[in-house]
Amino acid sequence: MAGIDKYELLSDLAKRRGFFWPSFEIYGGISGYLDLGPLGAKLKRRVEDKWLNLFVYQHGYVAISTPVITAEKVFLASGHVSNFKDLMVTCTQCKRHFKADYAITQAMPARTDIAVEAMSASEIDDFIEKNHVRCPECGGALSKSEFFSTMFKTNIGPYSDAIGYGRPEAAQGIFIDFKRVFETTREKLPLGIGQIGTVMRNEISPRQGPIRLREFTIMEMEFFFDPEEATCPYLQRVDETLLPILLAKDREQGRSEVTQVTPREAVKKGLVLTEWGAYFMALSIQFVNSLGVPKEKQRFEEKMPKERSHYSTQTFDHQILLERWGWVEVAGHAYRTDFDLSAHIKVSGTDLSVFKPYENPISKKIRVVVPQESVLGPLLKAKSKTVVEGLKAASPDDIEKSFKDSGFFEVQGFKVLPAHVRFEERTEREAGRRVVPHVVEPSYGAERLVYSALEYAYTRSKDRVVLKLPMDLAPTQVMVFPLMAKDGLPEIATRVRETLAIQGLEVDYDESGTIGRRYARADEIGVPLSVTVDYKTKEDQTVTIRDRDTWRQVRSDWRQLPEKARQYLRHEREFSELGAAVDVPYEQQETAV
Amino acid sequence: MAGIDKYELLSDLAKRRGFFWPSFEIYGGISGYLDLGPLGAKLKRRVEDKWLNLFVYQHGYVAISTPVITAEKVFLASGHVSNFKDLMVTCTQCKRHFKADYAITQAMPARTDIAVEAMSASEIDDFIEKNHVRCPECGGALSKSEFFSTMFKTNIGPYSDAIGYGRPEAAQGIFIDFKRVFETTREKLPLGIGQIGTVMRNEISPRQGPIRLREFTIMEMEFFFDPEEATCPYLQRVDETLLPILLAKDREQGRSEVTQVTPREAVKKGLVLTEWGAYFMALSIQFVNSLGVPKEKQRFEEKMPKERSHYSTQTFDHQILLERWGWVEVAGHAYRTDFDLSAHIKVSGTDLSVFKPYENPISKKIRVVVPQESVLGPLLKAKSKTVVEGLKAASPDDIEKSFKDSGFFEVQGFKVLPAHVRFEERTEREAGRRVVPHVVEPSYGAERLVYSALEYAYTRSKDRVVLKLPMDLAPTQVMVFPLMAKDGLPEIATRVRETLAIQGLEVDYDESGTIGRRYARADEIGVPLSVTVDYKTKEDQTVTIRDRDTWRQVRSDWRQLPEKARQYLRHEREFSELGAAVDVPYEQQETAV
Repeated sequence: MAGIDKYELLSDLAKRRGFFWPSFEIYGGISGYLDLGPLGAKLKRRVEDKWLNLFVYQHGYVAISTPVITAEKVFLASGHVSNFKDLMVTCTQCKRHFKADYAITQAMPARTDIAVEAMSASEIDDFIEKNHVRCPECGGALSKSEFFSTMFKTNIGPYSDAIGYGRPEAAQGIFIDFKRVFETTREKLPLGIGQIGTVMRNEISPRQGPIRLREFTIMEMEFFFDPEEATCPYLQRVDETLLPILLAKDREQGRSEVTQVTPREAVKKGLVLTEWGAYFMALSIQFVNSLGVPKEKQRFEEKMPKERSHYSTQTFDHQILLERWGWVEVAGHAYRTDFDLSAHIKVSGTDLSVFKPYENPISKKIRVVVPQESVLGPLLKAKSKTVVEGLKAASPDDIEKSFKDSGFFEVQGFKVLPAHVRFEERTEREAGRRVVPHVVEPSYGAERLVYSALEYAYTRSKDRVVLKLPMDLAPTQVMVFPLMAKDGLPEIATRVRETLAIQGLEVDYDESGTIGRRYARADEIGVPLSVTVDYKTKEDQTVTIRDRDTWRQVRSDWRQLPEKARQYLRHEREFSELGAAVDVPYEQQETAV
Repeated sequence: MAGIDKYELLSDLAKRRGFFWPSFEIYGGISGYLDLGPLGAKLKRRVEDKWLNLFVYQHGYVAISTPVITAEKVFLASGHVSNFKDLMVTCTQCKRHFKADYAITQAMPARTDIAVEAMSASEIDDFIEKNHVRCPECGGALSKSEFFSTMFKTNIGPYSDAIGYGRPEAAQGIFIDFKRVFETTREKLPLGIGQIGTVMRNEISPRQGPIRLREFTIMEMEFFFDPEEATCPYLQRVDETLLPILLAKDREQGRSEVTQVTPREAVKKGLVLTEWGAYFMALSIQFVNSLGVPKEKQRFEEKMPKERSHYSTQTFDHQILLERWGWVEVAGHAYRTDFDLSAHIKVSGTDLSVFKPYENPISKKIRVVVPQESVLGPLLKAKSKTVVEGLKAASPDDIEKSFKDSGFFEVQGFKVLPAHVRFEERTEREAGRRVVPHVVEPSYGAERLVYSALEYAYTRSKDRVVLKLPMDLAPTQVMVFPLMAKDGLPEIATRVRETLAIQGLEVDYDESGTIGRRYARADEIGVPLSVTVDYKTKEDQTVTIRDRDTWRQVRSDWRQLPEKARQYLRHEREFSELGAAVDVPYEQQETAV
């Protein structure tokens, strides 16, 4: 098996057994698209449910759903129309297009120190020229780099000016809905708003199978908090979860050692800018770990300023180590500040700030300007009203400064003199303040997580593949077999299957081939429990239950199975507690294979 | 409230409480797009899970997931590029575009007999001219009708010839994957392959709020069966479920009475062409009924030939009665035969047929042609091989006919004479046959079902809205209140909430306002159970539990709540069995409001 990596082994298994395969296969396929088969679709839904519970519902936060095709106005305001693009080079000979960084890294694979993502267009062009970078496919000369918008563009309805884009993130649907969602909840900050849904990124030429997709399911939470009350009460709950961070400053110096810190230390040392950000990073480690990826195979890579998205003040890529592709990003943790909300407030003219009442209203001394209307009225006649309003709207400080500088303050073409106004100090009661919340965002790609969970579950045991998926992820939780496909055993097994299914367990049935073959097939797709109906079942209703990981077997009344299996799958019961131990020598089981 | 219909009442409630609202609101909105708020998103996921279990998993079928943006080749082969379009008219004055049938029905709302969907372009143009149909907005003259493709079009990657469309149905992703999915399962027909996912239909100008969307979630199953073994073993299980069918032949005669038949009768009388189709229609009635829509508010409208999609041999729209829009389609049941598979086989060149082994291989007499190589060899030398192969590939009948007609049979320019071949009868063993499966398709729009469930749940009781959602749909299953927001009650209530949440229940917490107000708020969003922590809880751990529908209360130890609530929500336990009855006079409760 030398030379065959886990990606190849898994891809073969995934196709044969129904986890995933490239889309549009019968038409030659298009890179960047992936189909999830029966098992893959279930696995993905389990990953989604897990994320939703862990990040959103468990905290009392909420999740919404907004469209994929999004009005152009939204992405004009958010900055995506200007910023969501990649530098592309084209081969002057074969006319193929490449992402600029791909062309460069292909040409000089040894130069891991080149941060192409951080280069500008002209830097890329210079680099290509100086280093004689050629077409990775045919060796032809490359064009100058140009920007390619990586959003899918379309028209909404029959009007050519109604442009829509396939959203590259679910976040904008959340930002523009923030106020409405806030009002349907308890109207208190902090508030997390999650969304799971399809997003699209029109990659120039994706090449990494299930890892770089043009369409994938994002699991994203925009977490809104008051920057002046930014304490996270859960931070010490995650004290045990160290954050392994590859810091930007270390990366800049070519170092690749991670700094291990607790979330609290990370904030204290200024490595992570917000407590909430550090908390979600710790939760992220726990989440990915619960998918079967060991903590030591995870790290956070802090992005350098030029590598960050336009909306982010600090970004950490949550990466995990995969066999073929090395460190791969499965999540991004961005500190988006008030960038997006403020952009939408500005462009839409809608107030998306929230009112935060003080516990006790405070008194506040303020200076106001009082136009002397008895003087201005006779002077200005009909125009007096607009000038008075203009004065009231202006800041007293600005007016005074103007008096000092030029002797007057101009409103609507009229020169207001010091004699026209009076300054007063007043005491105002302030019941609260308006806040544009800041946002931290943990954001996951579901398909990458599905692939990663499969890669880490893939193990071999005595020349057989055992997919050791965490029990709560396994797409099929219980397999039911009749020992023989005759003598009424299939009928009983079918009843067992149906009973388990009605009780909400994910269960499947298999009657073909030897029992050993069927155990092997169940192991290969990671079924935690296999239940066999045999001749004894007809007498006393007992069945054998087999454990995927130890291949041990116990015997129990099948009518107790739904409850027992549920408890086992939730780790509330040990396998040995599922029934009376059965002494099945390994050999005996194997000869049946 | 005269003049305000349930749609308006519900839209208001939906916005205030977080079920749904129009998308892109802060940018003025775009019709045909809907956001689901925190409660709506949960409700939709519950509808999806219910459908998935009932139609797919309960039968042992499978579900997959394929991309939204789909390669043009797929929709060229399936006929969508040619057929998925609407007739559009444009106002010559205000330049607005309208779906032709909308313009006509707006102009003559009384003429319910006009089946505009069944009209051709020229029929529409004639009708508009004869009946002086004008622009519904400004009264201007209308253009001739033209086709508008209702698929969203985009480009995949930087190559302008790589066209992709937003899929208008999930079915094609299933068809092109059929063979692969078939191979990952037990390789037996029948096989249902389901898919839940986003689809897009670029409506010309959608006008029905949550009912006509440009983007929605489809829940679709393509059910593949052998047309020669088309018996549905479950048909008699649904004998009790009458199908109310508005037949095409009755519609053509202007009748609107439904024919009530059992699924078996429907097949026997030839009203429904397949047993599987009739079975899924019955299941459909049960499913929609379980969402809270009474059976008498449901019917099937058989589409007339011209109204059917290009791929369908028989179509029934499953309609339900809504207050504002009358009979609205929530599902389509189409008999797609082998149309789609055969189209993809033809265009892609991939064999999507399945091999069905006979139980006992049969012997079959066949005629073969045996080239006389001893004659042909010396005659043709090097060319002999190709001619021999050409003869073997040709049909013996064709060769004989050619001999009879012209005295020879031409292969590769060589005239084969009768003396060059011999005909033989041979007995061949046939182990099975290849089948291109036929397909019936039940297909649902999730958002319409969500809206319908809400409309039927919307009831008023003593001037209060009670959303009587079926218990298994309720987005929030349990509300937890501290009687007062002080004295340690919030802390206990929070613990109760967390315990219920960890046990997998959908639970929320509310401490603001009087207890009566909070009950009212819980009723308005359809929470089946409200739990109140009061001063007695501190002494004996008991809480009150209130029933949404009867407003009765019982008292029970909160630590037993997770199990009891789960059983109640699954209809395994009556409300009165949840605890000791509490005698709370309605008045007492109301004064607290």
